[in-house]
Amino acid sequence: MSRTGHAELASTDNIGSLSRAGDLFQLLRDGKARTRAELALTTGLARSTVASRIDALIASGLVGPAGEATSSGGRPPSRFAFKPAARVVLAVDVGATHVIIAVTDLGGKILSERRLAQDVAEGPEAVLGRIITDATSLLAVTGRTSKDLAGVGIGLPGPVEHATGMPVKPPIMPGWDGFDVVRHVQGSFPVPVLVDNDVNIMALGERTAHWPEHDNFLFIKVATGIGAGIISSGQLQRGANGTAGDLGHVRVPRGDDVLCRCGNYGCLEALASGPAVARALAAQGVQAESGADVLSLVAGGNLQAIQALRQAGRDVGDVLATVVNLLNPSVIVVGGSLGQAGEHLMAGVREVVYRRSLPLATTHLRIGLSMAGGQAAVLGASQMVTQHVLSPAVIEASLQAAG
Amino acid sequence: MSRTGHAELASTDNIGSLSRAGDLFQLLRDGKARTRAELALTTGLARSTVASRIDALIASGLVGPAGEATSSGGRPPSRFAFKPAARVVLAVDVGATHVIIAVTDLGGKILSERRLAQDVAEGPEAVLGRIITDATSLLAVTGRTSKDLAGVGIGLPGPVEHATGMPVKPPIMPGWDGFDVVRHVQGSFPVPVLVDNDVNIMALGERTAHWPEHDNFLFIKVATGIGAGIISSGQLQRGANGTAGDLGHVRVPRGDDVLCRCGNYGCLEALASGPAVARALAAQGVQAESGADVLSLVAGGNLQAIQALRQAGRDVGDVLATVVNLLNPSVIVVGGSLGQAGEHLMAGVREVVYRRSLPLATTHLRIGLSMAGGQAAVLGASQMVTQHVLSPAVIEASLQAAG
Repeated sequence: MSRTGHAELASTDNIGSLSRAGDLFQLLRDGKARTRAELALTTGLARSTVASRIDALIASGLVGPAGEATSSGGRPPSRFAFKPAARVVLAVDVGATHVIIAVTDLGGKILSERRLAQDVAEGPEAVLGRIITDATSLLAVTGRTSKDLAGVGIGLPGPVEHATGMPVKPPIMPGWDGFDVVRHVQGSFPVPVLVDNDVNIMALGERTAHWPEHDNFLFIKVATGIGAGIISSGQLQRGANGTAGDLGHVRVPRGDDVLCRCGNYGCLEALASGPAVARALAAQGVQAESGADVLSLVAGGNLQAIQALRQAGRDVGDVLATVVNLLNPSVIVVGGSLGQAGEHLMAGVREVVYRRSLPLATTHLRIGLSMAGGQAAVLGASQMVTQHVLSPAVIEASLQAAG
Repeated sequence: MSRTGHAELASTDNIGSLSRAGDLFQLLRDGKARTRAELALTTGLARSTVASRIDALIASGLVGPAGEATSSGGRPPSRFAFKPAARVVLAVDVGATHVIIAVTDLGGKILSERRLAQDVAEGPEAVLGRIITDATSLLAVTGRTSKDLAGVGIGLPGPVEHATGMPVKPPIMPGWDGFDVVRHVQGSFPVPVLVDNDVNIMALGERTAHWPEHDNFLFIKVATGIGAGIISSGQLQRGANGTAGDLGHVRVPRGDDVLCRCGNYGCLEALASGPAVARALAAQGVQAESGADVLSLVAGGNLQAIQALRQAGRDVGDVLATVVNLLNPSVIVVGGSLGQAGEHLMAGVREVVYRRSLPLATTHLRIGLSMAGGQAAVLGASQMVTQHVLSPAVIEASLQAAG
């Protein structure tokens, strides 16, 4: 078993024997029950091959008897279907000051969930140790054990080299740079462990749960930091080094004299993040120190705060207008704490995107708030794992190892 | 046969019978000769299935006998390989004032090529009529006929709805808006006809010919217009409406008071295109009316022209810095007439991209001039066609129709 298996993630056009039993399983993933004969006919595989592959899939628990034919006495059951409850996934969303752990089935259904107050700055050993302890107890509460685990998916609030699962110079995660998250977690859960940054998995979760028919999709998180998860041609795009979607340090025209913590002037994050809006308000004499303060002021009807939030929306919109011209998505979802604050930020976003983007690219463009909300990340973490562990190559490799 | 077949282009993860003979053929595309027994073993297909699929592929001409076993007398040849010369592709690059027609084999090798002076503004019937006539004669010169054609690929200098092959409000192509290019060409060549905008196929051609190992790749054309072709995760990205890569109307900070022909201020094209640089020079009293004039001045060592071209490079770099943060490509190729003018534009591009992009995203980033040059578009047009006509689904459909 590969540690993270990302090479295989891209292997849907894999050819040769590796994909054969995988294909048979992919066919069954739609949940429909089929007989061996139907499977042989549809796949073109030899009958003997189908029989042995089905036996292996049944032994793995991923496929089981289905339909009325199961009651026909001593003969082996003749119809088979995917069993999403066969295994479970541990889906973990690590935020700056919280952790959400969810147990899902292989269909992405959340079976149980737990939220912990936990500061990511305490370092990887403390945070991952807490996650492992709480996940073990959550599995027990759900009536499952670590033996049922198909994999673990983790979202972290910083850049992650997806191929290795290691954080790369994450600004708000002291002690995590280059830490081997995968190996550490596999010490307790010896299953595939996949790690990505939080915005990528939020994009995956939001799209899977609410916009599955949209292949060109963008999720932007506006909170203490600003970042985006990009889905193009139905696939999450990470770029050559895993930094795709990092919009926080794109220059915004309005900000030429605003210094960012990165050392450049005019970065989006220096203008439109929660702390940046709070600073702008403080400079006007309004008492605000954090994004949370801004949201309280807005909720209380403070006009300066509402205007500042709308202006932050315009700045975000400025960058999104470029993104729309470049990527031509059909849906943009705005999430994160500021994004979830209602229509003030969104109004600014829409105003600029529709003014500055190409008409052809915005005719059918929808811009909306996150519907998955606080669950986007764990839904995405689960999806990241099932995309991998149920992929043709991985299914086949695990069957060969078992057989 | 579908007219353009774009649904199938995305079907590499297709499951079931459609992909079986396709997979067998994909296996052979590497050029290696294999026996029926080897193919059965590798694919898991029944021997009888392999035998009938090989017969069908031989009948289609795509696969033929290979290796020493062919001389073994009356028995059917026992080893088989892909024959790239079996069929040819017509690859057409339509520019504003020229057309390049190439005949390639199924491996993308250019067999013959012809360049015509032709104004795209004469309208689709005149231009396509000329292409059909000249392509027929070029085929004859190459010793082939239209019966050998596997498909036709056409790049047009304007937005194209890829799914239908129709131009959409192309600014420099009067008479082409909504014209049914595919049907018109199929009147003479009844084969799959695929149409895309020129920058997308230049990206495809440049990457296939010179950067095949780079899955995150950007080609930017800087000429009379400015646009980009995006390859992410190894796949050309067109976006939801086919407008992805349209960078010409992204706002550049420096340009707030420069009106663009699109009605907005500060668009990249209003600052850094050939005509824009010429206008800026003319305003300084230097005689220049077009991009070609700018290039002549630069070639003659005119310092103002060199400075203006370098500034255009900085403006392009401003937009590319955002693109780098957003998409994290490992290679950016600058093409188009201004891009091909040497290092002056490139110096400006590099200066800003390396200053404004995230360090992590630029550590391994290469920015270079086009190596395919004037052949990028025809190489890409050929590649667009072979990706389609040799895809598993299309191969299988054609074999089923024949059988």
